[in-house]
Amino acid sequence: MSDLKIIVQKYGGSSVATAERIKAVAERIKSYVNGGYSVVVVVSAMGKTTDGLIKLASEISANPSKREMDMLLATGEQVSIAMLAMALHETGVGAISFTGSQIRMLTDGNHSNARITSIATERILSSLRENKVVIVAGFQGVDADENITTLGRGGSDTSAVALAAALKTRTCEIYTDVDGVYTADPRVIQNPRKLPEISYDEMLELARLGAKVLHPRSVEFAKKYNVRLHVRSSLNNEEGTIVMPMEEMMEKFVISGVTHKADEAKLTIRNIPDRPGIAAALFGKLGENRISVNMIVQSTGHDGIASISLTVLKSDLKKALEICEDLREELGGTKVDYKEDIAIVSAIGVGMMSGYGVAARVFKALADHGVNIDMISTSEIGISCVVDAKYMELASKVIHAEFLE
Amino acid sequence: MSDLKIIVQKYGGSSVATAERIKAVAERIKSYVNGGYSVVVVVSAMGKTTDGLIKLASEISANPSKREMDMLLATGEQVSIAMLAMALHETGVGAISFTGSQIRMLTDGNHSNARITSIATERILSSLRENKVVIVAGFQGVDADENITTLGRGGSDTSAVALAAALKTRTCEIYTDVDGVYTADPRVIQNPRKLPEISYDEMLELARLGAKVLHPRSVEFAKKYNVRLHVRSSLNNEEGTIVMPMEEMMEKFVISGVTHKADEAKLTIRNIPDRPGIAAALFGKLGENRISVNMIVQSTGHDGIASISLTVLKSDLKKALEICEDLREELGGTKVDYKEDIAIVSAIGVGMMSGYGVAARVFKALADHGVNIDMISTSEIGISCVVDAKYMELASKVIHAEFLE
Repeated sequence: MSDLKIIVQKYGGSSVATAERIKAVAERIKSYVNGGYSVVVVVSAMGKTTDGLIKLASEISANPSKREMDMLLATGEQVSIAMLAMALHETGVGAISFTGSQIRMLTDGNHSNARITSIATERILSSLRENKVVIVAGFQGVDADENITTLGRGGSDTSAVALAAALKTRTCEIYTDVDGVYTADPRVIQNPRKLPEISYDEMLELARLGAKVLHPRSVEFAKKYNVRLHVRSSLNNEEGTIVMPMEEMMEKFVISGVTHKADEAKLTIRNIPDRPGIAAALFGKLGENRISVNMIVQSTGHDGIASISLTVLKSDLKKALEICEDLREELGGTKVDYKEDIAIVSAIGVGMMSGYGVAARVFKALADHGVNIDMISTSEIGISCVVDAKYMELASKVIHAEFLE
Repeated sequence: MSDLKIIVQKYGGSSVATAERIKAVAERIKSYVNGGYSVVVVVSAMGKTTDGLIKLASEISANPSKREMDMLLATGEQVSIAMLAMALHETGVGAISFTGSQIRMLTDGNHSNARITSIATERILSSLRENKVVIVAGFQGVDADENITTLGRGGSDTSAVALAAALKTRTCEIYTDVDGVYTADPRVIQNPRKLPEISYDEMLELARLGAKVLHPRSVEFAKKYNVRLHVRSSLNNEEGTIVMPMEEMMEKFVISGVTHKADEAKLTIRNIPDRPGIAAALFGKLGENRISVNMIVQSTGHDGIASISLTVLKSDLKKALEICEDLREELGGTKVDYKEDIAIVSAIGVGMMSGYGVAARVFKALADHGVNIDMISTSEIGISCVVDAKYMELASKVIHAEFLE
């Protein structure tokens, strides 16, 4: 492999939404080819194609077979790879497209959310040696019985990272419609900073807490295989953000990002006996019902009486309330409260691991601006606060100003 | 295999053009399943999908790579098979979809016009034994290197016939938007008769001479493997037309069909020396330029001077004229004539093989109605006449009335 200078690039749906954009992507790839690179490209489905296919299926079935949905959705990326290969040919660059099946992107049989088990690199390498750009359909693979599988949300990013790992390249470029990872959502904070670097763990926390630029799964994969992700825009040539191992970062910020989420609701079961197994019973039941819990706080009062608060997606609230109410009756709690008009504002940064007093600075900044904190949870590299929804923007601004301006 | 009562059905693009039509197809298949059949279904791309994909490619390239076109076009059928599987599941019928690759529909590497070399039946049979309807993407296969190939025009019919042959079923049902093969085009002849049976050779002649219901290639394939084709409508339950070996037909008509074509032009090279090799030189040159010749007539005059007339598609006329002109100069002919406003009206029937005087009856009928014949060619089972375009309809009616009313 050592004789080839391989780079893996992934272009998202917005980067290949139209024939014109596909031509622009081809020109960009050509510049890498001219620079001596052997380029492996992973593409998503064009623009809103996947949504269109989902709508088409919904005209037939409200609950289609996952195997057949994968069969259907995989066509989206197959269209893109053919189109991009044609566009490269037009620029005079050799190129060949492959489906997941053709490059033996093998996965388990978990349709709609499959895990990659192995990738064969022979055909990719032999095509690269023939001076062809290799274009791979993202998001898709095949299981051991040749059934087409898809990788779930963020699947094309995961395909690209897996290819970079299999081909032992140091960096995987992720082209998208934003030009990097910012310290905050520009719709809320006027001048957020673009981060030159961010660690895998920070990126994972950002993604989990509301940032949409990368799906957590692809970041986990990149961390596992030590592949650097260069998140950048397909519309300009600026350097984006490199997601990388914390140890190798040039500069570490105390806080590298502020996120907000408004899609969760808070529930509290009040005054239940504080004895072992209660939290386990509650979260077991929620898990069985496929309700994922974000924040959890248990507070113990006097006489062995406790309250448990948690946040779930608003779309899961009704079901979660039923489960909590059942448990309250069983255990003899007094009441189940809930609140929908909340927001979760979080500060994330590896600097918290070493720097003391970060939490105190967050709480003081919020208090100074009259923002009441309803619930707090912390991790090694993050602090999340539940506030009234009306304070979401103010709380984000205050924390961003405290650490990042 | 003998324990399964297998039937192969093929549904064309118009039969699966919308979600509603796909549901109707699923209901039809269900009735066969309830009747104890193991059903193998081949489907085309939904409605005008293929045209849409061709247009999409044209936005990138005027002359796209055939391999990449096959990659692109194969997605059309893949969408259909997933949709039909979902629709069958909704009716409570087990079903599983397969791409050409998944059932090992192996072809040569001739992209856009590949030939089937073999089909593996193991996976199909094991799915049928699990009481599943097997849905196969028509029109597509893979070559020995796993490249996706397509079978060219009439490809889905060919896929279905190949499956019927591989599974050793006697009949292959071809569902389309007409309910059988008629003695003439109903747009020209008011009350054409639907033929209950027709021989492979007649069907081939009809297809070659303008009937669009089946592509000649699938008929040739069916003849070769002795598979009966039942051409019928997906919109009703009427029996259609069975294309079958001539020897097994119950009733043979003298003439089974009248066709017309208006897309050809006639050329004549006048007064060239009548010596061996001239026709070969002309048709060799035309072939090299991928111009296919339909009718050919050579007439010899006195003193070893001959004229050659031929018909070609109007779209090939310009190029054919150049070739004829070059040859005329080389050989010393006097002139190259051409005529565009012509039509070819043909009568086809196996009855001609045994019945005398059919040609004479055709000529007399036309003469009685004042239709002048410009050029005549005959085969074992057909007579074709070139007439002025303005007589196309009249000539068709006259011949149809003479033999079929």
